[in-house]
Amino acid sequence: MWAVEYRDEILVIDAGLMFPDEDMLGIDVVIPDITYLMEHQEKIVGIILTHGHEDHIGALPYVIKQITAPVYGSRLTLALAEAKLKEHGVERKVQMIPVSPRDELKIGSFKVEFINVNHSIAGVLALAIHTPAGIIVHTADFKIDHTPVDGEPLDFHKFAELGEKGVLVLLSDSTNVEQEGYTVSERVLAEKFEEFFHGAEGRLIVTTFASNIHRIQQVVNAAVLHRRKVAFIGRSMVNVVSIAKDLGYLKIPDGLEIELDEVQRLPANEVVLVTTGSQGEPLAALSRMAMGEHRRITIMPGDTVIISASAIPGNEKLIARTINHLYKQGARVIYEAVTGVHVSGHARQEELKLMLQLVKPKFFVPIHGEYRHLVQHARLAQEIGVPSKNVFIAENGDVLEFTANSGRIAGRVSAGRIFVDGLGVGDVGNVVLRDRKQLSQDGILIAIITLDQENGQVLAGPDIISRGFVYVRESEALMEEVRAKVIEALDKCQNQGNNDWSFMKGQIRETLSRFLYERTKRRPMILPIITEV
Amino acid sequence: MWAVEYRDEILVIDAGLMFPDEDMLGIDVVIPDITYLMEHQEKIVGIILTHGHEDHIGALPYVIKQITAPVYGSRLTLALAEAKLKEHGVERKVQMIPVSPRDELKIGSFKVEFINVNHSIAGVLALAIHTPAGIIVHTADFKIDHTPVDGEPLDFHKFAELGEKGVLVLLSDSTNVEQEGYTVSERVLAEKFEEFFHGAEGRLIVTTFASNIHRIQQVVNAAVLHRRKVAFIGRSMVNVVSIAKDLGYLKIPDGLEIELDEVQRLPANEVVLVTTGSQGEPLAALSRMAMGEHRRITIMPGDTVIISASAIPGNEKLIARTINHLYKQGARVIYEAVTGVHVSGHARQEELKLMLQLVKPKFFVPIHGEYRHLVQHARLAQEIGVPSKNVFIAENGDVLEFTANSGRIAGRVSAGRIFVDGLGVGDVGNVVLRDRKQLSQDGILIAIITLDQENGQVLAGPDIISRGFVYVRESEALMEEVRAKVIEALDKCQNQGNNDWSFMKGQIRETLSRFLYERTKRRPMILPIITEV
Repeated sequence: MWAVEYRDEILVIDAGLMFPDEDMLGIDVVIPDITYLMEHQEKIVGIILTHGHEDHIGALPYVIKQITAPVYGSRLTLALAEAKLKEHGVERKVQMIPVSPRDELKIGSFKVEFINVNHSIAGVLALAIHTPAGIIVHTADFKIDHTPVDGEPLDFHKFAELGEKGVLVLLSDSTNVEQEGYTVSERVLAEKFEEFFHGAEGRLIVTTFASNIHRIQQVVNAAVLHRRKVAFIGRSMVNVVSIAKDLGYLKIPDGLEIELDEVQRLPANEVVLVTTGSQGEPLAALSRMAMGEHRRITIMPGDTVIISASAIPGNEKLIARTINHLYKQGARVIYEAVTGVHVSGHARQEELKLMLQLVKPKFFVPIHGEYRHLVQHARLAQEIGVPSKNVFIAENGDVLEFTANSGRIAGRVSAGRIFVDGLGVGDVGNVVLRDRKQLSQDGILIAIITLDQENGQVLAGPDIISRGFVYVRESEALMEEVRAKVIEALDKCQNQGNNDWSFMKGQIRETLSRFLYERTKRRPMILPIITEV
Repeated sequence: MWAVEYRDEILVIDAGLMFPDEDMLGIDVVIPDITYLMEHQEKIVGIILTHGHEDHIGALPYVIKQITAPVYGSRLTLALAEAKLKEHGVERKVQMIPVSPRDELKIGSFKVEFINVNHSIAGVLALAIHTPAGIIVHTADFKIDHTPVDGEPLDFHKFAELGEKGVLVLLSDSTNVEQEGYTVSERVLAEKFEEFFHGAEGRLIVTTFASNIHRIQQVVNAAVLHRRKVAFIGRSMVNVVSIAKDLGYLKIPDGLEIELDEVQRLPANEVVLVTTGSQGEPLAALSRMAMGEHRRITIMPGDTVIISASAIPGNEKLIARTINHLYKQGARVIYEAVTGVHVSGHARQEELKLMLQLVKPKFFVPIHGEYRHLVQHARLAQEIGVPSKNVFIAENGDVLEFTANSGRIAGRVSAGRIFVDGLGVGDVGNVVLRDRKQLSQDGILIAIITLDQENGQVLAGPDIISRGFVYVRESEALMEEVRAKVIEALDKCQNQGNNDWSFMKGQIRETLSRFLYERTKRRPMILPIITEV
C-alpha cells in the first residue's frame, strides 16, 4: 500500500495483504497498519487498485471497514475486489469506479492517467499521478510482453510521452530484478501446451493461479484445437473464471465448458481439468486429488498433470509433496523444474532498464519485492544514470517528501503488520505468538492443586494433565514423579513459611521445568493452577 | 539406510537422519525404524557409512544404542561419525574400521570393494558388494568431477571393470535427475572466488556447509593468493575444520588461520571469515550477524558476504531473510540466484547415464531423492536399455529379492519414521503432534471448577485461563462470557440430572467450542478441569 499526499488530500494506491510467515503461528493473513489513514480520514480522496492480486487488494475489506473512499480499478480488478468485500458483507459501503487504459480522471485535485501494462493477471493498470510538484509514475506489477495473449502490449507510447514531458518520481516493480535479460512472453506457453496436449493419451489436468486469466485462456485455446472439453475445479478457479467470462476477459466457445459431473462420462482423452492447487495448498483440489482424497476426481495412470506456476517462496515443499503423490498415483507430471511450463509476470533487468529509460524520472523509488530486490533495483537505476542521491529505498512507514527539485526521506508514520486471526484483527501480538510457539514445540503440562483456605492444607491434587508433551498413556511413571515434585515444591514453600500463591506457582514452575528438562530435554509450558475452597 | 541380506548375514549401508517437516512440530530429527535389524541382531556383520553427511550418518548414535556391529568408512566419515557418537556418550561401544578407495574387505562373507567418487564432502566411497548371487554396486551420493579439488576423480576404471565383470544390481543416486547435462566441477568456483576476492574492498565473509571441505579449501586457497588471513566461525565449522585438518583433508598453510579475537586487529581487507549459516538457520553465526546479534562480529558497509550453497528445500525463506538483513546492515551479498556461486554435489542426467553405461547392471534401483526423482531415474535407466521389468522403485520397508537371474519386490518389513524429541525416541506420535498442531494455531483455554463431593455444588470457579488464544488483558469481557457459558453448561447437566464428569466436561467443551468459534472464528483446545473436595 502506498499513499500520495499533497496538502489536504491523500490518494491511496493498493491495499494488499501478506500471507503469514512460518513463525506467525495460527495467523490467517497479515494486513497493513492504516493508523495514519484513519487519523487523516477526511483527507482521503480515493483508493486505486492497480490489479486484482491478493497482495494488492486482499486488505481492502479491512481498510474499507475503517475508512470511506471511492475505489478505482479496471473492471476485472473491481470484480475481484467486490467478491472479497461481499465475503465480509461490506460491499455496500463502497463506491466502485471502473476505469480503462488511457482514461484520465480527476480524483480530488490529482489528475490520474491509467496505463496498460502486462502481468500475470489481466486488467493491470500503471498510474501517472499529476501533482502540482510533478508527475509520479507507479508501474504496478508489470512485465513487457510484445505478444500478449489479449493483444494489448504495455503502453510504451504513454510512458514515452510522460518521460518526454518530465517525470518527478518513478515507482517501479522490483520483484524480478535478480534475473538478467527479458521475461519471455506469455504466448510462448502456447507451444508448450501444444506439445503436452499432443502427447497426452489420457486426461489433462492443468493447475495455475486462478487469477492468471491469460494462462487459462491458453489452456482453453489448446483444448479447442485438441477437441477436448474443459471443466474447472476448485472454488477460487470457478469463481474467477465466472467473473472473467462475464466481463469478457476470458473467451470460452459455446459448448466447450462442462460440469464436473460430465467428466466421467467422456473418454479420458477428451477432457481437460483446470484446477486450483498450483502451490500445493493442502486443501486445494489438486492436492486432494494427489492424496486420493478428492470426492469426484481420482488420479489414474495415463493422466498428465501440468503444474503451470512457479513456487511462491515458502511453498516449495508443499508443491514437491504434491508432485510426489501424483507420481505415486501413476500420473505423469510436468512442472517447472523439468520443463519450464510457466513464465513470470514480472519484468527482468532489461525490461526494468527500458522502463527507467522511457520514463527518465528525476527521482526513483524501487517498490514491490524484498529488501535485497530494492537495493539491486536501486543499483540498476544508478547504472542507467539516476544519481544515487535521487534514489530512495523506503521501508514500511517511511515518508518520502518531494518538491519539484528535491527529494528526501522526511520521517516516519506508524506502520507495520497487523495480524488477522479469525475475527480478530490486531489482537494477536507477541505474547500470544510466543505462547503458541512454545505450545507448538513441547506442549503444555498443567498441575492442579486445591487448598483449604483456612489452613493451606492440600485438599485435592496435585493432578497433572498434559497435552502435546508426551504420549500420556505411556507416561504414567513420569507423571507420578511430576506429582511428587509438585508436593516437594509445596513442602518447600511451607517450610519457608511462604504461602503466597505467586511464590508457590513460581516454585512449582521452576521445579518442574528443571525436572522435565533433565528427564526429557523438552520445555513444555508449565501451568500451575491453585484453587482455594 | 539400506541393508543387504544373504542367508544369515546382514550388511547395513548408512544410518541417516531426516530433518523434520513443518508439520512435525517440536521434533528434533527423524530416524529410521530399525525394528527389523533389532529382531535380527545376530545376523548383522557390519555397518558401512558411505560418507559423512547427516542423511547418511546422523542416526548412527541411535542405531548403535540398539545394535552392535563394527562400522566401516573413510577416515573423514568415521571422524565425523565419532563426533556424533561422543555427543551421545556411546563412542566406546563401537569398533571403527577405516577404509580407503580400492580397499577390498571381507565383512562377514561379503567381499566389499570401496570406490572413490566425487561429492560435496570429501571421503565418499561407493561400494561393490560381492555376494554369491552377484555383485551389488551402491554409488553413494556422487557426481563426476574431472578436475576435483583433491585431485582424485571418480574411479571410472573400477566401475568399468565391475561392469565388464557383470553387475547384478546397481543402486544409484537420483537427487539431481531433474537436471539435464552435467554438474560442473567444484573447481570452476576457484574463478568465482578469484573474482569476488579481487573486487572486495572490505572483509570477506563466506558461508558454506561445514562439511564441504573442498569448498573451504578453495576459500583458503583464494585467501592465500589475496594475502588475507582466515578465521572460522560457528561450532560445526570449527569442529569439522579441525577434524579435516588433522586428517589431512584440508590444507591450511602455517600462519594463515587466525582466532576470532584477532579479526578486529587486522585491516578489513586482510580478513576472510568462514562461517556457518548457509541455510539461514536462526541460531547460526551468519544469521546472528545479519540480525546484528552476534557477540563478536558486526556487519558493516564494505563487507562482502558470499553464500556459497544452495537452499535445501524448505529453507528458502530463512535464507532470503538472512540476505535481506545483510543488505540492511550495508553488506554486499553474493548468492546463487544472482551469481551461481555454488555447484551441486550430485550427478545430473548425463552423469547418471554414464554410470548406468559403465556398470551395465542387470537390475536397477534408483535411490536417494524423493519419489518423483526415483520415477525419473527409473525412466532414464530404461532409455539406456535396462528393461522396465528389471527396474524397481522401492519405498521404505520394501524387500527386494534378487537371484542371479531374477529380481522382485518380495515383501515388506516394518519400517518408517521414528521421531526424536529431546531424549524421547519414538514417544511422540500422532496424538501428541495433533495436539501441538491445534495448540500452535489457536492456543488453549482451560476452565477449572471445584465441586463439593457431597452435593455437587460449585465451591470455586469457574476460573478461566488461556494461553496462545487471545491477549488476556484485552479479553476480560470475553472471559466473563466464557465463565457464564460454563455455568450455563453445568446448569444444563444438573437439569438433566447427569453429574457424570465426562458428560459434564463434554458439555463444557461443546458449549465453549461453539461459543468461541462464533465469537472469534478460532478453535483453541478446550480443557475443562473438574476437582471434587
